[in-house]
Amino acid sequence: MATIKDIAERLGVAVSTVSKGLNGAPDISEELRRQVLDTAVEMGYRTKKMRKEEHKKLVVFVENMDYERPEDFGYDLILGFRQMAYRDNWAVNVVSVGPKLQTHEKYDTYMLMHGYSGAFAMGFALKDNWMSQIAKTDIPTALLDNYVPLNQNVGYVGTDSDEGIERAIKKLYDLGHRRIAFLNGSPNSWVSDQRQAAYEAGIRNVGLKLDHDLTAYGYYVADSARFHVPAMLEAGATAILCGNDLIASGVYDVCSHLKLKIPRDISVVGFDDLPIASELKPGLSTIRQDRLELGKCAYFTLNSLINNVSISKTMLRPQFIERGSVGEVKTK
Amino acid sequence: MATIKDIAERLGVAVSTVSKGLNGAPDISEELRRQVLDTAVEMGYRTKKMRKEEHKKLVVFVENMDYERPEDFGYDLILGFRQMAYRDNWAVNVVSVGPKLQTHEKYDTYMLMHGYSGAFAMGFALKDNWMSQIAKTDIPTALLDNYVPLNQNVGYVGTDSDEGIERAIKKLYDLGHRRIAFLNGSPNSWVSDQRQAAYEAGIRNVGLKLDHDLTAYGYYVADSARFHVPAMLEAGATAILCGNDLIASGVYDVCSHLKLKIPRDISVVGFDDLPIASELKPGLSTIRQDRLELGKCAYFTLNSLINNVSISKTMLRPQFIERGSVGEVKTK
Repeated sequence: MATIKDIAERLGVAVSTVSKGLNGAPDISEELRRQVLDTAVEMGYRTKKMRKEEHKKLVVFVENMDYERPEDFGYDLILGFRQMAYRDNWAVNVVSVGPKLQTHEKYDTYMLMHGYSGAFAMGFALKDNWMSQIAKTDIPTALLDNYVPLNQNVGYVGTDSDEGIERAIKKLYDLGHRRIAFLNGSPNSWVSDQRQAAYEAGIRNVGLKLDHDLTAYGYYVADSARFHVPAMLEAGATAILCGNDLIASGVYDVCSHLKLKIPRDISVVGFDDLPIASELKPGLSTIRQDRLELGKCAYFTLNSLINNVSISKTMLRPQFIERGSVGEVKTK
Repeated sequence: MATIKDIAERLGVAVSTVSKGLNGAPDISEELRRQVLDTAVEMGYRTKKMRKEEHKKLVVFVENMDYERPEDFGYDLILGFRQMAYRDNWAVNVVSVGPKLQTHEKYDTYMLMHGYSGAFAMGFALKDNWMSQIAKTDIPTALLDNYVPLNQNVGYVGTDSDEGIERAIKKLYDLGHRRIAFLNGSPNSWVSDQRQAAYEAGIRNVGLKLDHDLTAYGYYVADSARFHVPAMLEAGATAILCGNDLIASGVYDVCSHLKLKIPRDISVVGFDDLPIASELKPGLSTIRQDRLELGKCAYFTLNSLINNVSISKTMLRPQFIERGSVGEVKTK
């Protein structure tokens, strides 16, 4: 566990200042106090008070998602959630959930057994056992990228896919692209369905016709690209919009293999803005989700549900980040 | 202005306790401190600190909406907003906005001129001058029941109309109603359009056919009913869903005039759950919006926008409140 000294060094302030921040002393600014608390969460430090109040606990469930390293999709989501929860003196456990746990334990039972007051669940698929149980749960639950109708105890947190995809398609259209493909993530995922609908609406909005040879569901991994990109190129795609940045990195690999240059021969757009997006050559233009803020919104939603305020949806606007992977359509 | 003594009397606590709550003394509970602050806002008391920090100001704009008495739609919205803003030491001005101000002053200019850091705008119609300016504003703005696409500085707050209307239609259908009418509020309103779409989807979801003789746009006032209810009855309506509780109260008047008994001859459902809903005879079944919490969500959204977190939407779930105005369809 990090010490107070570690936090002081990271922030470049005195140990006494960190101590004041952690104990809520009145003679440091609110901003500095928050910086101290946020850094303490980030570095894994926990105050005596938090260690004592073990009964006041929240849980983050993670399924189908990497989250342990800063470059992983889930990392900032959990960090943002914990930074906010810490301010209200919640302890937060992170639990990785596979199909086995979901088969062996009922969701509500698991929550009660461990004394969790609420959960933030990330990465669940529509067919997961726990999803059908969460649809009817009495326990406050915030879902990332999943929506449950008619349950006052469950709220949705996510990025407005429509707006990001609309912006990206408009940009490609303005650059002359008329054959814009969409390589989506996993089927059986609520958010994949939302993005598919957003793509179809975006294509219609610029006056193009939908062509099913230009769309495919894959998985949210790089390897997904090689199964679908050749057929999309065959169908005349001049731009490929991807369900996430990892899929886009796979498109880079396929293009490199086929000796196609990005963006001269083909434009590529990702989704998420993971660290990998700026590391690719050329840099990947992508639809950015602010994962740290999404994590904070998840806490806001969950905390509201715990206080009997039934938030149905909290959505963040995406940003379209332009790097080098998008260019004018190639004139033949 | 209310005094500390007034607040103490209202809460049934000592004057010294109120004083501690207002000054953030550590020896009263967080819950009591919040109660003191919330009551202080409600009673119009302001601390010395707040009076000094006049430069840190937010504004609530109100157009086409009553808000001055507890029974008015806007009252709790403003109260919830101010209770939250007060905790962060914001001063909040409430400004009633008519077409004249919107013609004479540009939105951004008005905001800058008065030193407002952000606005919560309630009751604006789509055709209002300021709405087209807000669509492009750089100033953080939370909108009640209005959505602006593609502007990172503007967020939407509202109740999920779909879910409330779906529940109400399902309930009426289960009671045997097959001719369910919808008397909507004003045209040229984003939220009226949302509710119209929700009504049409709800009717289709239970397997009924849309009949345009059963729907009409009116205005969000009681008087609206007498222009439309006779034609709806003529078209065979056995239940009338209303755009708000005021319209529903107008439906009561028309029915009384026509010697129709509620719910024996006709079922009526409102929207909002204003105080009037429980005062009507029989009590009005209605789709409840939690306006105090909506006001708090508006503050959360606006405060996020001010801190460069671009919240697109915050939505609350409605509740369907059953009172006496809904019954089984009359068998002929």
